[in-house]
Amino acid sequence: MSAALIGVDWGTTNLRGWAFDTSGAVIARRASPAGISAVTDGDFAAVLRSLVGEWADGRTPIVLGGMIGSRQGWHEVPYVACPASTLALTAHALAFDTGMGPGWIVPGLSCIGGDGVADVMRGEEVQILGAEIAEGVAILPGTHSKWVRIEGGAVRSFRTFMTGELFALLKGQSLLGRLMEEGEGDPKAFDAGVERALADPALSALLFGVRTEGLFGRIAPHALADYLSGLLIGTEVRAAPEAGAVTIIGEGALVARYARALGLADGGREIRIVSGDEAASRGLCRIGMGLREGHIREGWSA
Amino acid sequence: MSAALIGVDWGTTNLRGWAFDTSGAVIARRASPAGISAVTDGDFAAVLRSLVGEWADGRTPIVLGGMIGSRQGWHEVPYVACPASTLALTAHALAFDTGMGPGWIVPGLSCIGGDGVADVMRGEEVQILGAEIAEGVAILPGTHSKWVRIEGGAVRSFRTFMTGELFALLKGQSLLGRLMEEGEGDPKAFDAGVERALADPALSALLFGVRTEGLFGRIAPHALADYLSGLLIGTEVRAAPEAGAVTIIGEGALVARYARALGLADGGREIRIVSGDEAASRGLCRIGMGLREGHIREGWSA
Repeated sequence: MSAALIGVDWGTTNLRGWAFDTSGAVIARRASPAGISAVTDGDFAAVLRSLVGEWADGRTPIVLGGMIGSRQGWHEVPYVACPASTLALTAHALAFDTGMGPGWIVPGLSCIGGDGVADVMRGEEVQILGAEIAEGVAILPGTHSKWVRIEGGAVRSFRTFMTGELFALLKGQSLLGRLMEEGEGDPKAFDAGVERALADPALSALLFGVRTEGLFGRIAPHALADYLSGLLIGTEVRAAPEAGAVTIIGEGALVARYARALGLADGGREIRIVSGDEAASRGLCRIGMGLREGHIREGWSA
Repeated sequence: MSAALIGVDWGTTNLRGWAFDTSGAVIARRASPAGISAVTDGDFAAVLRSLVGEWADGRTPIVLGGMIGSRQGWHEVPYVACPASTLALTAHALAFDTGMGPGWIVPGLSCIGGDGVADVMRGEEVQILGAEIAEGVAILPGTHSKWVRIEGGAVRSFRTFMTGELFALLKGQSLLGRLMEEGEGDPKAFDAGVERALADPALSALLFGVRTEGLFGRIAPHALADYLSGLLIGTEVRAAPEAGAVTIIGEGALVARYARALGLADGGREIRIVSGDEAASRGLCRIGMGLREGHIREGWSA
């Protein structure tokens, strides 16, 4: 089976591929745990071939996004500075020979915050593109959650919160994890955490409350992780850009947590949810279609 | 050599003892790494004997403070609720037989914050007492830093920040540590971290800046840990009670960091520094002298 276009989202810990027909419809998909950190011999070509080789006929364009374009990836592609449009992503994609046909790696984005500190993303820019947001805020929850301001279809600015990484560290390695027990989720404990974080920005003090709330039996051991999650996500919502509709890009329970926290902060806010998987495949397809139409060769840029 | 009074600060990871004469002067001191987490067989009496046994004549009072009074310690002593005076600490000390003379374990303190969440300390209350602060704010930097409001010589309220634990986790186990290299300290990077945290409360976003400042070469690898330290300590200073003179209780470089961060926030603030070692020994001595004078038996309380 030969595809018109192949899209690949290649992150640190996983790898997903889609085959598209000429209309951009997904005709096949595959996933693998071979994220770039698992490719220790640097033979990215072999991993790619095993994932999408049977869809390629030697001429099928393959568009790759994510950490595959980082220093630890196949070929490093410089970040494109915000504000950045769809066309900027397409124009700055790095063309190379995949060994089974022409390939392009989508660049990540960088932006400088109001405090002069740089921020970066790789992979999320493809999902944002796929979510087709004209104006507003996109949230991409995860290890490093991104809050993205979009204006006129372009990424204006963004900010990263280490929420997922902090949650895993604090639950797994800190004093806070010692009182925690596994169990069913506790929405009330999550809400309490969000409310506390909305009312008080001193995160490193709020975190110690996870211990004392457990110590004094005010939050049950199985609910402490939810309380911690609420504190961390509430901290994001508190710092969030105030105006505009919100699109949350991701899956399942984590997306529901962000929707809930946003609702607790402002019940009237318009919230749209887009599957992260769908956003990635549609974003890769849009970039691929642009490349096929020859935007690169015509020298389009931001 | 027999002492008039023995004081012991017994924490999670270390143990310190002092012998006092009848005037309260220190006549001998010893330290050991046998914190309560190292006493896996629960034989606290044997550890105590090896540390201070030769100072005790069977009647010498031994006053113990710190995590030795926790659930994981020798005997659990309930927290005393704030506001709590010196006399409250003395009156609620737990009397027991150490096996080499009469012993008392000093209770820890608890308080309920404005948000209804409890906070706790064990050991710091002895140091606060030893620092002899009438009015103002005491800061006790550490794994779990304490900011303490003192009024009329009593502990009115306090708040704990997980600064030291977060620093160790983020440096040792997170993505942020990967770009860090050991080297001389960099005061400018520390100052930059403090300034950022004073200007912006979104700690979980500021933390990601440690990565990007390293990634873009704006802060050198050997200076990134100082920048991280500045962000965490700056977060404390930002959340700090505004009014009053500050006493920092602790040692060396860490105390200097807090003094520097306080100065960056408010150059006019009065800062006093008290050695943590001295504060602990003086606090234990004051409680011991109170017990010797029979305050407990006369039924004094808060």
